[in-house]
Amino acid sequence: MTDPTALPRKELFVLPEGMIYLDGNSLGPLPRVVQTRLAEMVAGEWGAHLIKGWNVDDWMGQPSRVGDMVGGLIGAPAGSVVMGDTLSIKVYQALASALKMRPDRKVILSDSGNFPTDLYMAEGLIHHLNQGHELRIVAPDEIAGAITEDVAAVMITQVDYRTGRLHDMADITRRAHAAGAVMIWDLAHSAGAIPVNIAACECEFAVGCTYKYLNGGPGAPAFIYVRPDVVADLAPALSGWLGHDAPFAFEQSYRPAQSIERMRVGTPPVLQLTALEAALSVWDGVDMQALRDASIALSELFIAEVEKRCPQLTLASPRDPQARGSQVSFHFAHGYAAMQALIARDVIGDFRSPDIMRFGFTPLYLDEGDIHRAVDALADVLDNRLWDDPAYKATNPVT
Amino acid sequence: MTDPTALPRKELFVLPEGMIYLDGNSLGPLPRVVQTRLAEMVAGEWGAHLIKGWNVDDWMGQPSRVGDMVGGLIGAPAGSVVMGDTLSIKVYQALASALKMRPDRKVILSDSGNFPTDLYMAEGLIHHLNQGHELRIVAPDEIAGAITEDVAAVMITQVDYRTGRLHDMADITRRAHAAGAVMIWDLAHSAGAIPVNIAACECEFAVGCTYKYLNGGPGAPAFIYVRPDVVADLAPALSGWLGHDAPFAFEQSYRPAQSIERMRVGTPPVLQLTALEAALSVWDGVDMQALRDASIALSELFIAEVEKRCPQLTLASPRDPQARGSQVSFHFAHGYAAMQALIARDVIGDFRSPDIMRFGFTPLYLDEGDIHRAVDALADVLDNRLWDDPAYKATNPVT
Repeated sequence: MTDPTALPRKELFVLPEGMIYLDGNSLGPLPRVVQTRLAEMVAGEWGAHLIKGWNVDDWMGQPSRVGDMVGGLIGAPAGSVVMGDTLSIKVYQALASALKMRPDRKVILSDSGNFPTDLYMAEGLIHHLNQGHELRIVAPDEIAGAITEDVAAVMITQVDYRTGRLHDMADITRRAHAAGAVMIWDLAHSAGAIPVNIAACECEFAVGCTYKYLNGGPGAPAFIYVRPDVVADLAPALSGWLGHDAPFAFEQSYRPAQSIERMRVGTPPVLQLTALEAALSVWDGVDMQALRDASIALSELFIAEVEKRCPQLTLASPRDPQARGSQVSFHFAHGYAAMQALIARDVIGDFRSPDIMRFGFTPLYLDEGDIHRAVDALADVLDNRLWDDPAYKATNPVT
Repeated sequence: MTDPTALPRKELFVLPEGMIYLDGNSLGPLPRVVQTRLAEMVAGEWGAHLIKGWNVDDWMGQPSRVGDMVGGLIGAPAGSVVMGDTLSIKVYQALASALKMRPDRKVILSDSGNFPTDLYMAEGLIHHLNQGHELRIVAPDEIAGAITEDVAAVMITQVDYRTGRLHDMADITRRAHAAGAVMIWDLAHSAGAIPVNIAACECEFAVGCTYKYLNGGPGAPAFIYVRPDVVADLAPALSGWLGHDAPFAFEQSYRPAQSIERMRVGTPPVLQLTALEAALSVWDGVDMQALRDASIALSELFIAEVEKRCPQLTLASPRDPQARGSQVSFHFAHGYAAMQALIARDVIGDFRSPDIMRFGFTPLYLDEGDIHRAVDALADVLDNRLWDDPAYKATNPVT
C-alpha cells in the first residue's frame, strides 16, 4: 500500500512524455497495472482455462466483487453495488424501478445540467410505458423548489458535465424524500473525483461510470447502487438471466436474486471488468478528502493563473470550490479553435458547445508543475490566435 | 487470406496442450491474434492517445464496423448490424420495438427451447409495460401452428441450447409474416456455427452473442440486426446518447439516428470490441458451407462412435444432421458426474440439467482425431463409474 499522503502517484500511470492530461474527467489514462493484468488474464485465464474461467477465475463473481471496490470509494456498504452494462442502461434500470415504486405519480424530475443520455433514457422509457409519465426538466438551481408531490423520481447528475457545478446530495435527497419521491443520483463525475457518502445521503439509487476518474478504460462498465432496504421489493425491468436467483437452473420463469445481483442483466464483460479491477488498485491508500484537497488546490491555481494570464476567458464554473466538482470550465468565443490549438501543444482538455473549454483535475497524476505548463500553453494559444488564420478559417467554418 | 478449404486452422488459436475442447458453443477459445492486438490497443491507443482514441483510432466507429464483420457471417447487408451491450439487452430492444410496431396485439410467442434470458427479458418488459401483454410459450415443434393473428412478435432461438434442435428460419418467418407478426430471431447458437441468410429470411430483427462460435472472449458484446426498411420507423426503448442522431451536439431531447446506429445505447466496450474485431479475422476465407459440412462430419462421427462404444448414453439431439445446429447432446442419468470425470480427463463439454451432456463442434479448431480421443475418454469415464465411488457420492448428492 502506498503512502496515503503521496499524491500524485504518476508512476502508476502510462502518461505520454510531454502530455499534460486535463481530460481525466472524460477518459482516465492507462494505469500500468492494467497492461500486465489484462495480458495475464487473457493468456492465463481465457487462454488456459477457457470455459472453466467462469468458476476457477471467478469471472462470475466479478460484477459484485468489483462493485464492492467501487462502493468503497463512494461510501456504499458491501453488497450494495454491482457492475455491468453502461451508465445509460443503469439509469434505465433505476428509473423503471423507481416508477414502479411510485405507481400513482407521473413525473420524473431532472435538470438541464444532467447529461443528455439520462434524459434520453427517461424519454424512451416514458414513450414505451405509455402511461402518461412526464419528464420535467428545470434549471439546476430550481431543482430544490421543483420537488412537488407529483414527482415519482428525482433523477439528477451531481456534477454538471459542462460547468462542474455540484449539487448537495444530502439536501436534495432529503427534499425528495420529504415530498415522497424516489431519489436517483448519477455520479458519473463524482466517483473518484470528490468524497461521496451514499449511505449517509440515503438515496434509493445511484449510478455512474468508471472510465472517467476511475480509469477503467474506454467502455468500462457502469455501476448501480441500490439502498439495501429497497432491493428485495424492486421489480427489475431488465430482468436478465444473471439477475435471476438461480441463473444456472435455467428455469422458465424469472425469479429475481435476493440481493443487488438482481440488477445484473446479461453476461458480464470480463475483459473490461478485469481492466477495471486492476485500475481500481491505484486507489489503495488514497484518502478521498486528501484527494479533494489536492483537486481544489490544483483547480484554484489553474483559475488564478488563467484569469491572470488569459483575461479573454470567462469562468463558467462556480467560483466557490465547494460548489464545484473536479473540473473547471471557461467560456471563450473561440473556444473550439483554442482547444484544438491547445491539444496540438499536447495539453489535453475538451470543448463543449457552444463556447466551453473544459479541464479536469485529477490529483492521482497531476501536480502544480503541470498546471503551470498548461497555462503557459494556453497563453501561447491565445497569443497565436489560430482562429484568425485564413487557412484555419477556410476549413473550420465554426470557430 | 487462408485457403478456404483449410479447416481446421488450429494454429490460429491458443489451445492448451492435451485439451479437447468441445465447449466452443459456450465460450470460444482465445485466438492468438487477440493477445497481440489487445496488448497493442491498450498500450498504443488507450495508453498513447487517451481521449483522442475515440477519433484517431475510430473507437466510436467500432460498433458499426464490427457489426458489418458479423453481418458478413450471417448474410446481413452492410449497415444493418450493430454491436453493443449483451444479448439480453438486445432482445429487449428488439421486443420493445416490435410491440410498438403492433400496438393492437398483445402476445409475444416463444418456445420452451428458447434460452431462459430471452423469456425473462420478455417477462420484465411485459411487467413494466403493464398493458396486458402475454408471453405465450409452446413446445418447439408447436411454434408453426401457434402463430395466430393475436401474436405481435414471434421471438425464438434458432438452435436449442440444450439439444441443438434447429428451427427453419425462412419457414417460420414466412408464417409469422403471413399472420401479421414481427419476427425476432436469436442467433446465439447460429452465428459462426451454421450458414445463416438473414436477408433472405426477411425477419425484422435478429440478435446474437459473439463469445461462442465467434470467439470474442468472455463477455464479448452482442449484435442486433434490423431489417433496413424498418429501421427508420423504430422507436428505441433504450434511447441512449450514442443512438442519437447527433450524440455530440448534446441536445436536450432524443432524436434517433437514421440508421441501425439508433440501436446503440451507451459508450461502447472498446476493449471487448477490440478483442472481438481481432477474433473475427480468423474467419477470413472460411466458406460457411464448408464449415457446415465439416461440422456435420465431426458430429456424425461423434454420434456413431458414442453409440457404438457408450450405449448407456441416449441421443438427445435430432438424428438428422440437417435438423441440428453445431452441437450434439446425450441423455445420461449420471451425466453430471460423467461430465465432471470427462473434464478431469481434459475433454471439455458441459452439463445441462436434468441429464444432458452437451458437446459443441467447431471445425475451426477440431479434427477427427480430436473426436476419437474424446470418445476414448468418454468410454473410459463410463468404465470407471465415478458416480459409484463412495467418496464422490458423499460430496455430490446429485449425480
